[in-house]
Amino acid sequence: MLPFSRITIIGLGLIGSSVARAIRANMPDVRITGYDADSGVRESARGLNFCDDVADNAGTAAIDADLVLLAVPVGAMGDVATSFAADLPVDAIVSDVGSCKQSVFDALAKALPGATIIPAHPVAGTEKSGPESGFASLFEGRWCILTPPDDAPEVAVERLKTFWQRLGADVEIMDARHHDMVLAVTSHLPHLIAYTIVGTADDLEDVTQSEVIKYSAGGFRDFTRIAASDPVMWRDVFLSNKDAVLEMLQRFSEDLTALQRAIRYDKGDELEALFSRTRDIRRSILEQGQDDDAPDFGRKH
Amino acid sequence: MLPFSRITIIGLGLIGSSVARAIRANMPDVRITGYDADSGVRESARGLNFCDDVADNAGTAAIDADLVLLAVPVGAMGDVATSFAADLPVDAIVSDVGSCKQSVFDALAKALPGATIIPAHPVAGTEKSGPESGFASLFEGRWCILTPPDDAPEVAVERLKTFWQRLGADVEIMDARHHDMVLAVTSHLPHLIAYTIVGTADDLEDVTQSEVIKYSAGGFRDFTRIAASDPVMWRDVFLSNKDAVLEMLQRFSEDLTALQRAIRYDKGDELEALFSRTRDIRRSILEQGQDDDAPDFGRKH
Repeated sequence: MLPFSRITIIGLGLIGSSVARAIRANMPDVRITGYDADSGVRESARGLNFCDDVADNAGTAAIDADLVLLAVPVGAMGDVATSFAADLPVDAIVSDVGSCKQSVFDALAKALPGATIIPAHPVAGTEKSGPESGFASLFEGRWCILTPPDDAPEVAVERLKTFWQRLGADVEIMDARHHDMVLAVTSHLPHLIAYTIVGTADDLEDVTQSEVIKYSAGGFRDFTRIAASDPVMWRDVFLSNKDAVLEMLQRFSEDLTALQRAIRYDKGDELEALFSRTRDIRRSILEQGQDDDAPDFGRKH
Repeated sequence: MLPFSRITIIGLGLIGSSVARAIRANMPDVRITGYDADSGVRESARGLNFCDDVADNAGTAAIDADLVLLAVPVGAMGDVATSFAADLPVDAIVSDVGSCKQSVFDALAKALPGATIIPAHPVAGTEKSGPESGFASLFEGRWCILTPPDDAPEVAVERLKTFWQRLGADVEIMDARHHDMVLAVTSHLPHLIAYTIVGTADDLEDVTQSEVIKYSAGGFRDFTRIAASDPVMWRDVFLSNKDAVLEMLQRFSEDLTALQRAIRYDKGDELEALFSRTRDIRRSILEQGQDDDAPDFGRKH
């Protein structure tokens, strides 16, 4: 049994196009309609042929869907939903793939009063953007978190859960605010720090940019991967999950200050104790299959 | 012409054992003697057979070398050098592979008065430790920075340069203090930040450690790789390159505070401008062959 038979994806970048490709790979009988606000992206999507149809406006795309999936920057969710509100079938489920959930739910609920809205977040991605960057296996073995509101119909939640499982994901149900706190530390704070350190390095006067690039294999290059992620998407994430992000930033800054002090006053034992503890966390991530064990991320040597 | 014919490596962990393996692979006629202060590591090294001989003390190891290469934590360099000072051949060159250079030179010069000391730093490594983690191709296409003192014999510098080139590295000559500043930003600061954020995540009350691990694919896992690096080695690096590290930390903290403020006051344009700039730096690193272009570091999907 297919959980949905006519799926509309709005936003055909890395994630939207990967969902389409994963549906094709795992549920080939599902009819996929796509739409993107950018006409160039629509053109690329037609050429790449991962949708059965690419519509020229959001209303036309949504009109016969049983699932409408929004894969646009979280700050754009409300406006996009408004653009197809009049055409949304009454029994359709509306979901999304955004990286913060409470603000997205609020925006969708306001734009689509009475609709069945079940926000979701597949914790997967790469630093690449655009429809040509997607691939069908992106969600395999990754977690997808659903954050249904308390009054969401159970059968709708089950259908969406089955959908993500069919794409290879493990599904977890979570409260939206808790999701936003968890992702603030596992995803938003890392991105913010990566963006910052890359900017800091770029601003130095005594060390040239070419030196930073040449010697980046000493550790810096690890940070540049996520600092190459989509700027608009991440701008929206930080502004939409402001409270949790600022809370995590505050904690991180305090910890960094403590470490700075340990260095200044030669407290080698404190440093070594922290550095030993952090090794164990890496080990757990490897054990749970959330990263590769190959040295250096498996880069070629 | 071989730059050296009898090389002694002191410290047989990831880097020391990789140097031995790379010598075997690229200059098979060179006789390699190894020594490590840890008897278990000496035993492993004998089993792994990447040295012609593993000596049981540093003096015996150094006694007939024309190059003595120290691959121990930077805080241990002085003591290790003292331990073989009486046995060092008068025409031998002493070098090292440490991640900071001025403090290492000072320690070696004090322990080995009159010796020819040319510090070096191959900017290469992985997050793994120990003699079983080394491999021969570790230095291929990576930079090795030599920081000879002003009065170093030119011919000695040339020999060491040739040595590293034969292992596949590109060699750069640099002032020791400038090296320490460059590496503070490209390597030491990234490690410090990675250790901090992994510690911050581990200390949360509202988000469990198991949640941090489960959802680490959102970005956090990138930071855990270098936070799994050798604790003693890194403790020593931060304490030995204190001034440059504290300077970079200060700059980073200021930049992070500015970003925090931009989020608090909804300055989306500032965020987007920074995030676009950092993309270009990633692009340059890829163009210069210092990282792989495969999405997600080429992790399996």
